[in-house]
Amino acid sequence: MAHRHLPLLAVLVLCLTVSAAVTDDRALSGYSADSARAERDWETKFRAIPNADNQREYMKRLSARPHNVGTPYDQDNAEWLLAKMKEWGLDAHIENFDVLFPTPKERAVELVEPTKFTASLNEPPLSIDPTSNQQAEQLPTYNAYSADGDVTAPLVYVNYGIPDDYEKLERLGVSVKGAVVIARYGESWRGIKPKVAAEHGAVGCLIYSDPRDDGYFEGDVFPEGGLRNQNGVQRGSVMDMPTYPGDPLTPGVGAGPGAKRLDLNQVKTLTKIPVLPLSYGDAQPLLAALKGPLAPEEWRGALPITYHIGPGPAKVHLKVKANWDIKRLYDVIVKIPGSTYPDEWIVRGNHHDAWVNGAEDPISAAVALLEEARALGELQKQGWKPKRTILYCLWDGEEPGLLGSTEWAETHADQLRQHDAVYINTDGNGRGYLFVSGSHTLEKFLNTVARDIEDPEKKISVWKRFEAHKIVDSKTDEDRKEVRQRPDWRINALGSGSDYTVFLDHLGIASANLGYGGEDRGGIYHSIYDDFYWYTHFSDTDFSYGRTLSQTVGTAVLRLADADLLPFDFTDFADTIHKYADELEKLLKKKQDEVIERNQEIQDGVLLANADPKKPYVPPAVDQVPPHLNFAPLLNASEALTRSAEHYQKALDRVTKNGGLAIGNAALRDLNAKLILSERKLTSPEGLPGRPWFRHLIYAPGFYTGYGVKTIPGVREAIEQKKWKEADEQMVRVGAVLEDEAALIQSAAAELEKQ
Amino acid sequence: MAHRHLPLLAVLVLCLTVSAAVTDDRALSGYSADSARAERDWETKFRAIPNADNQREYMKRLSARPHNVGTPYDQDNAEWLLAKMKEWGLDAHIENFDVLFPTPKERAVELVEPTKFTASLNEPPLSIDPTSNQQAEQLPTYNAYSADGDVTAPLVYVNYGIPDDYEKLERLGVSVKGAVVIARYGESWRGIKPKVAAEHGAVGCLIYSDPRDDGYFEGDVFPEGGLRNQNGVQRGSVMDMPTYPGDPLTPGVGAGPGAKRLDLNQVKTLTKIPVLPLSYGDAQPLLAALKGPLAPEEWRGALPITYHIGPGPAKVHLKVKANWDIKRLYDVIVKIPGSTYPDEWIVRGNHHDAWVNGAEDPISAAVALLEEARALGELQKQGWKPKRTILYCLWDGEEPGLLGSTEWAETHADQLRQHDAVYINTDGNGRGYLFVSGSHTLEKFLNTVARDIEDPEKKISVWKRFEAHKIVDSKTDEDRKEVRQRPDWRINALGSGSDYTVFLDHLGIASANLGYGGEDRGGIYHSIYDDFYWYTHFSDTDFSYGRTLSQTVGTAVLRLADADLLPFDFTDFADTIHKYADELEKLLKKKQDEVIERNQEIQDGVLLANADPKKPYVPPAVDQVPPHLNFAPLLNASEALTRSAEHYQKALDRVTKNGGLAIGNAALRDLNAKLILSERKLTSPEGLPGRPWFRHLIYAPGFYTGYGVKTIPGVREAIEQKKWKEADEQMVRVGAVLEDEAALIQSAAAELEKQ
Repeated sequence: MAHRHLPLLAVLVLCLTVSAAVTDDRALSGYSADSARAERDWETKFRAIPNADNQREYMKRLSARPHNVGTPYDQDNAEWLLAKMKEWGLDAHIENFDVLFPTPKERAVELVEPTKFTASLNEPPLSIDPTSNQQAEQLPTYNAYSADGDVTAPLVYVNYGIPDDYEKLERLGVSVKGAVVIARYGESWRGIKPKVAAEHGAVGCLIYSDPRDDGYFEGDVFPEGGLRNQNGVQRGSVMDMPTYPGDPLTPGVGAGPGAKRLDLNQVKTLTKIPVLPLSYGDAQPLLAALKGPLAPEEWRGALPITYHIGPGPAKVHLKVKANWDIKRLYDVIVKIPGSTYPDEWIVRGNHHDAWVNGAEDPISAAVALLEEARALGELQKQGWKPKRTILYCLWDGEEPGLLGSTEWAETHADQLRQHDAVYINTDGNGRGYLFVSGSHTLEKFLNTVARDIEDPEKKISVWKRFEAHKIVDSKTDEDRKEVRQRPDWRINALGSGSDYTVFLDHLGIASANLGYGGEDRGGIYHSIYDDFYWYTHFSDTDFSYGRTLSQTVGTAVLRLADADLLPFDFTDFADTIHKYADELEKLLKKKQDEVIERNQEIQDGVLLANADPKKPYVPPAVDQVPPHLNFAPLLNASEALTRSAEHYQKALDRVTKNGGLAIGNAALRDLNAKLILSERKLTSPEGLPGRPWFRHLIYAPGFYTGYGVKTIPGVREAIEQKKWKEADEQMVRVGAVLEDEAALIQSAAAELEKQ
Repeated sequence: MAHRHLPLLAVLVLCLTVSAAVTDDRALSGYSADSARAERDWETKFRAIPNADNQREYMKRLSARPHNVGTPYDQDNAEWLLAKMKEWGLDAHIENFDVLFPTPKERAVELVEPTKFTASLNEPPLSIDPTSNQQAEQLPTYNAYSADGDVTAPLVYVNYGIPDDYEKLERLGVSVKGAVVIARYGESWRGIKPKVAAEHGAVGCLIYSDPRDDGYFEGDVFPEGGLRNQNGVQRGSVMDMPTYPGDPLTPGVGAGPGAKRLDLNQVKTLTKIPVLPLSYGDAQPLLAALKGPLAPEEWRGALPITYHIGPGPAKVHLKVKANWDIKRLYDVIVKIPGSTYPDEWIVRGNHHDAWVNGAEDPISAAVALLEEARALGELQKQGWKPKRTILYCLWDGEEPGLLGSTEWAETHADQLRQHDAVYINTDGNGRGYLFVSGSHTLEKFLNTVARDIEDPEKKISVWKRFEAHKIVDSKTDEDRKEVRQRPDWRINALGSGSDYTVFLDHLGIASANLGYGGEDRGGIYHSIYDDFYWYTHFSDTDFSYGRTLSQTVGTAVLRLADADLLPFDFTDFADTIHKYADELEKLLKKKQDEVIERNQEIQDGVLLANADPKKPYVPPAVDQVPPHLNFAPLLNASEALTRSAEHYQKALDRVTKNGGLAIGNAALRDLNAKLILSERKLTSPEGLPGRPWFRHLIYAPGFYTGYGVKTIPGVREAIEQKKWKEADEQMVRVGAVLEDEAALIQSAAAELEKQ
């Protein structure tokens, strides 16, 4: 296979060499004119190095066997990664942590009434797929950190199992008290489903992959196509990560040798009820045995059955028992020392552990990281010295609960708070558009990077391509107009679901997460079929986007590490905060309008007059109309932020001369120190209400969404959960950190004005 | 079964008798105070008569055997209906017509590549369903008026097979030239599917019922539930009815003994290609054998397959051959002579023929008509004499192409144009809300009737119940606000699909169509399972809505027939015309904006930049931006209409004294004559472009929707089909008829002012 690609690559290297010969004089934000020229040169050299065939070989090796936490191959991979880094001339080491990682001891799902059916709980090997038969090493299908349990109860279908679904169940007169619920994967992070089910009195939870969501409805199934077949099961953690991620036994501290560990019964992040995942092959007989109300249209999946809700007559026996063992993690850490600002760090990470073979998740992006590291090693040999210290990290134990990154960052928390300017994460890659999420102080910078990277399919910049995608995909004229007119595309805020979480949410380090995708629709997530065969047939089959990811992230790392002045920007950030404040006002208004309308419909008898008397319907009770809240602290702070951001930008423009920054070195050091603090300022040591581990007041994973972000979460979740007093209090807290942020930016601007 | 209902009915009759004893003094539009009192009294008596158990017995008799056109039981039913009418003291007769009605001689659908499969084309009997085993008398599954043909070609899935779907196919680079298309039922009238397919070069057409649309996705299937099972097939006509309905051999004239008949090869309303309907059981192997592009998400149904478009590798053999016979129709016509205005007619109809047993379609509403007729017979015995002549009609041959009503009305066209004030139609009934469509000059009147009818489930007026439904169902706050604030609910415009077509669209007679439904979701339409067992288990099982339909339509007929002044209203009509004009302006603006946006995306390269290079995509060509059109004639006419409507209403209010109209008899006669003309004025003898049979310039079935209405069709379809010159011309024609209408109303107002 390698041979087929060589001629193309040879041509490519030639082209890039030629283009490198022409000096690139374009300015770079945060760089003096001289630094910019040098940087452009190094970046061009850098981008010529990552190689698609190398990535293919790394993937083949790393995904050759199951390598979840605690397996020999997980350790073996870590040692191989370490050796590679050293081979490339990089200073690397492994850091170990010992964490709670339960694995299945007993699992059973049986339909006991009205007919008998025993779920296979098994993903069979496929003869065409060479690694699918490593059954002795595969972790059985399960949800890690499920409570042990053995229950037999009527079954209730709860759609995605999110709070809104329970609101609908109430209207239908269905209670899940004492029932086993069956929810489909999707819409929320999976750990939310058993959490919400238990809050409503359920005694067990099944989670299945409906073919509507990633099976035959979406495309041909594996191995004919890339989508989930009837036996594919999504494993995954159900730890209560929105409370805190990482080792359940050591919240807030690193799980090193001396750490104080909780007893298992003190842990708050295990589920309250037993949980198991199912394939749709196993789920169909259970769902088909339900009667009771017809599921609302949007609840129905793609199985060839009529979706009923229950409860019963289907009765289910669910049994879950785990080995509650401590397992060792192997984080691989590489350090490239900085020459000018060694105490300012740029950290870049991707995990290396998987649920099974994990070719896509996480190896597809880990191999991009490897090619970046190899390229940086090459540049060092050619004389490049980054101004800042760069850390490359390959985390272990991401899948069970962001274990490796969280324990490492908790261990090194003080250093990180002091030194770390930026954390850049990836976690899987595919074919298509560049997706970027992150801190909005990095929005302009990441846009700039994307403008310099070429899309391998279209030979236009990945920035341009994503813009085209957003124009075509816009739902409204207004959205489309914004895409066309705004100089930068908006990046999404970070929720959770990967290793940036501890950096951003716990430590307040400006973070970003990048990846290509959108043309690689698959259905092998967390199954045994996420392997080399699948990836090389149905995703980025020639690793051209793998190479592009190396170029993208590597360019970002290089440009951050080499900058004279950190390229943080506050105008896009202030614009984003303004947008969030506006959203919150609209959210409250919407809730008020909804309650007023619903109350009127209840009082006018309209809801009962409309309802079909032959179908169950429980009208809602008249509700209190949400009060008006005091948005002033938030709005005032948002405006202060806008003013200071404009001030900083103006001051920066003033010291930009002849295509580059002109600032003295001493001033740069002070300024950079202030800029690093800008994300820290957005945190509060008390954290969010009820979950102090989460300290960032602008971004957090939703308590009831899991991965999905809630921006200005203290206020937003208080409004969503009708905690009006808390919403007002949080508005004051957020206002205060934003006023502090504005003051910091103001002082940086003043510093600049002295130049 | 009858016994169970008797006690309830006894109580009911008692209540109504008691309430009838209290004189109802409320005013009635079009009535003097005295007439109103008398009318209220007769109406109360009338509404006490219709009986649910009678309807059950009629349905059992009429749906006992298959009774499609040309069968002995069709004639037998007609004769039984005639006898019943006579038994009730009514003057009834049968009128016959001889029409082209093809029945299947040969039918075959086979998958010949890549594997073999022969479609069963058969609906099996079910042991629980007593009439489902009358196979010798059942019309096989087929589409009447399909061309004969025998083709073998690659298969292409075309979604609903409407013009928009072919636009999508073009973007996917798929042509249906030389292919057999398979479309799913729904979205358009079925006859549109082979018409559009043939326009695009297809050589055959299959139409199947996807379980997404009326099968297991929507609820439990027959006989466990009411939805379509895997063997249920929707028969139906594919005659090109938007060109002209009725006997294909006698367009525009009655198919009586002396009529000049076209040769078969001269007929324009047969399909160009062979067509057959399929169950989803028969369709699944065909669809599963398709490859090629993945169907767009909204095209995918609920079969447990990945929906691909093709063409091929599935290759299909389709064979259709019909007996092209002439069959006799039996229309049953009842006449109740008018006492004051015998030359003003109120016509009420429902068909009696079915595709098979037809319990729901049409017997459920035919039995309501029967109880109305019986009740009118009763009232006559009690001394009631309608002012106007009433005709009750039970049409034959509706299913194949509105044959019985069209041929009868074409035969009596001159009389009808001269005498017929209103036509009221029903065609099937179920459980739920009252749905009303019709001429907007009747909107206010029909609202008034609905306010006086009690919903049998909720014991509130059916008007109130539908209002509640519309409030709960509103998609936007604006819609909801309109429902709450507008005194009358809006009625829908009439398209086609039932026997009002010739009255409204060809003759210009103000028409309405009524029925209850919305809580009776079924999937037996045009299959052998539409029978007494199904209806009495899954629809209006106790015939309480059947009784309510008799009360509703009977009240309308009585009130129209007895009025001093016909209760036509022009303010709601003018408001509706204003709304349509506004819609047309918005439609043009939307088309302009869409083309401008698409052209920009093409010219900026955005569409190609966005597209996945591994998937077929053909970008559209740059298109001409729709020009501005001259809306002035329409807008001026709409305003003239508004003024004259207000003038008429004011004049009417002026002559309303002491709770009733005060107008002399001679003036009434003149005024009524003008009012009858008001719908006639909306027609033009030249008819619509390309389809002169359709003479109404405000309402028509869409040329590419079939049943679905196009309001102001000349203009709307010209805009949709990008015929800009024609759009401008039609605007002038519509403006002219509306100015004429305004003048007529103005003259009626002037007449009133003389009082």
